[in-house]
Amino acid sequence: MEYETPLFFHLMSYADRAAHDVVDMVSGNPDWEPPAALREALREYADFHPAEFQYPPSDGLLELREEVAARRGVDVDQVVITHGAGEANYLAMARALERDAGTEILLTDPVYPYYPGKTTMLGGTQRFVATDEAGQLEPADVREAANEETAAIVVNTPNNPTGAVYPAETVRELVAIAEERDALLISDEVYDHYDLSGRFASALEVDSDHRIVTNAFSKSMAITGFRVGYAIFPPQLVENARSRHMLVNVAGSRPSQYAVLRALRETEPEYYERNRDLLAERVETFTNALDAAGADYTRPQGSFYVMARFDGFPGTLENVERLIDEAGVAGMPGEAFGESKSDWLRFALVTPRVEEAADRLATYFE
Amino acid sequence: MEYETPLFFHLMSYADRAAHDVVDMVSGNPDWEPPAALREALREYADFHPAEFQYPPSDGLLELREEVAARRGVDVDQVVITHGAGEANYLAMARALERDAGTEILLTDPVYPYYPGKTTMLGGTQRFVATDEAGQLEPADVREAANEETAAIVVNTPNNPTGAVYPAETVRELVAIAEERDALLISDEVYDHYDLSGRFASALEVDSDHRIVTNAFSKSMAITGFRVGYAIFPPQLVENARSRHMLVNVAGSRPSQYAVLRALRETEPEYYERNRDLLAERVETFTNALDAAGADYTRPQGSFYVMARFDGFPGTLENVERLIDEAGVAGMPGEAFGESKSDWLRFALVTPRVEEAADRLATYFE
Repeated sequence: MEYETPLFFHLMSYADRAAHDVVDMVSGNPDWEPPAALREALREYADFHPAEFQYPPSDGLLELREEVAARRGVDVDQVVITHGAGEANYLAMARALERDAGTEILLTDPVYPYYPGKTTMLGGTQRFVATDEAGQLEPADVREAANEETAAIVVNTPNNPTGAVYPAETVRELVAIAEERDALLISDEVYDHYDLSGRFASALEVDSDHRIVTNAFSKSMAITGFRVGYAIFPPQLVENARSRHMLVNVAGSRPSQYAVLRALRETEPEYYERNRDLLAERVETFTNALDAAGADYTRPQGSFYVMARFDGFPGTLENVERLIDEAGVAGMPGEAFGESKSDWLRFALVTPRVEEAADRLATYFE
Repeated sequence: MEYETPLFFHLMSYADRAAHDVVDMVSGNPDWEPPAALREALREYADFHPAEFQYPPSDGLLELREEVAARRGVDVDQVVITHGAGEANYLAMARALERDAGTEILLTDPVYPYYPGKTTMLGGTQRFVATDEAGQLEPADVREAANEETAAIVVNTPNNPTGAVYPAETVRELVAIAEERDALLISDEVYDHYDLSGRFASALEVDSDHRIVTNAFSKSMAITGFRVGYAIFPPQLVENARSRHMLVNVAGSRPSQYAVLRALRETEPEYYERNRDLLAERVETFTNALDAAGADYTRPQGSFYVMARFDGFPGTLENVERLIDEAGVAGMPGEAFGESKSDWLRFALVTPRVEEAADRLATYFE
């Protein structure tokens, strides 16, 4: 069995190896401060009793599951703390394929490349539903593509790479389609704290036994390297997901979970607002500079990404490496997200140097 | 698909919930101090730049992979840092089953219960080879059981639960059998620092493209909750394992990896010796008390465990719960490790109260 590896790490290290200065806009690695309480928790942890250095409960520290359950309005038994949203999506997709209710996973095009990779690895097949130019998903198109073999519909809102935020109506319809087809809607909401449109709707708002919501603290707390996420399962699906989690990872990383727990309890709403405002400012700055350069681009409603298109410069891996070498700006090739974006490049706004990056691009394509 | 969950977490929380005092000897959670440098690393980490809070390389911090490679005498490209030995074994077994060289996993009886759980989850079938009373594996028996469908032979030395340490001759033969059958020997050596016999032999000592060695810092540094382990693959098998690791977990937990890196560099051999000596003392104390109680038991050559047998008290889950309730001692049921040990109970020597535990058992069975 062969499955493809997403290109993120390849390009991050390619950019790293460059001898000249490169503005790194490859991956969704926030460059802003984590919550102060998270740093404080690490200091505190350093002096803990050895017992606190041992396995946490397999499904996560109980207090952390309780905090998540209370905030999301679900029963604590539905919450599994995972090794980031990556493992949460893996568990959810595995669960969908193991229900003996289909072998096909419906994905969007463009798509976050980990989803097709996981699908193949888990022995499922993929079917893609195209979004519109703005990244919006038309429920009628999903309904038409769904069939008896549909095991899951996997969506991501706010979306990576398009920046689309699905309205409540779309989310409701996606859950309805999952129910009609005895499939599972898997809604990856890892960018929920970076909704710039004010109209983000979580799939949790639609009560159903046919939806799984995945999330993580990686983006909201600017700690992609800590690997703490969660999945919220319908009660009848949680047990088996817990088993897979235990058989793959045994348990999560305890210091990471403890640090997130303290940060979750002690961080004021202003922390999250400040980061969202910073992102909104960067969107403004970067897109203004792209305007000045006469480039085509998408204005995100949420998430970290702007997609841009430059005449005669398709979004191939080769071109992205050329941009790193010759323009000093590192992005992701659009083709990594599906054929529909093969003319585009994706830039992550996780650097204070977005204006400089846009200027470099303008000069390069002048 | 259904797969069984090992009972460890169930029994740990059962023991935790007891209203009375219970000596917890369920799981291999060391109760001794982690290395001082590991605590120091957490303090240091708390003040790091936000960039250090983001994804480490997917296959682990390069410096950590280099340290492991240098210590184990392998090329750094063969080393994948994993989320504990649990994920390392999962990656290794998945790799074995995906080679299209068989669907069967050879396991020992008694067995560490995660291995059959992983086998079923990965769609493989199990075949068991009985060890002798002392837990030693006869290579001739393995050779007889191996067949065209054998994808992997999974062993654990020093062994959980038997305490057996396989001699170099056995390890050499197991690698030879893997080669003969185009299978992979997967050697889980997570207890390598707790060899009480002085004759532990790593499978790395036998050069071969047919063996994968898994390990972790969970036991050697007394940090089962940090989740840092590694797998050493033959060069031609590493790429695909790396992909699976990325698709399941994206990357490991960075603070955990950093703390392990510092501890690996700065911890003196005396730290490891002290813990091994402590364990040897506890073996002595516990088995002496069992002798006095007239119980049958195994004396481990390595790892953390003593298996004991009490007349008319088989090693069932029910009996283990009864011991928690009525004797105040928590162990693991022998039947969890395979039918051959269904008369036995396993006790982990991870408490200073091993003498008290043995006395309680003696009084209970008097």
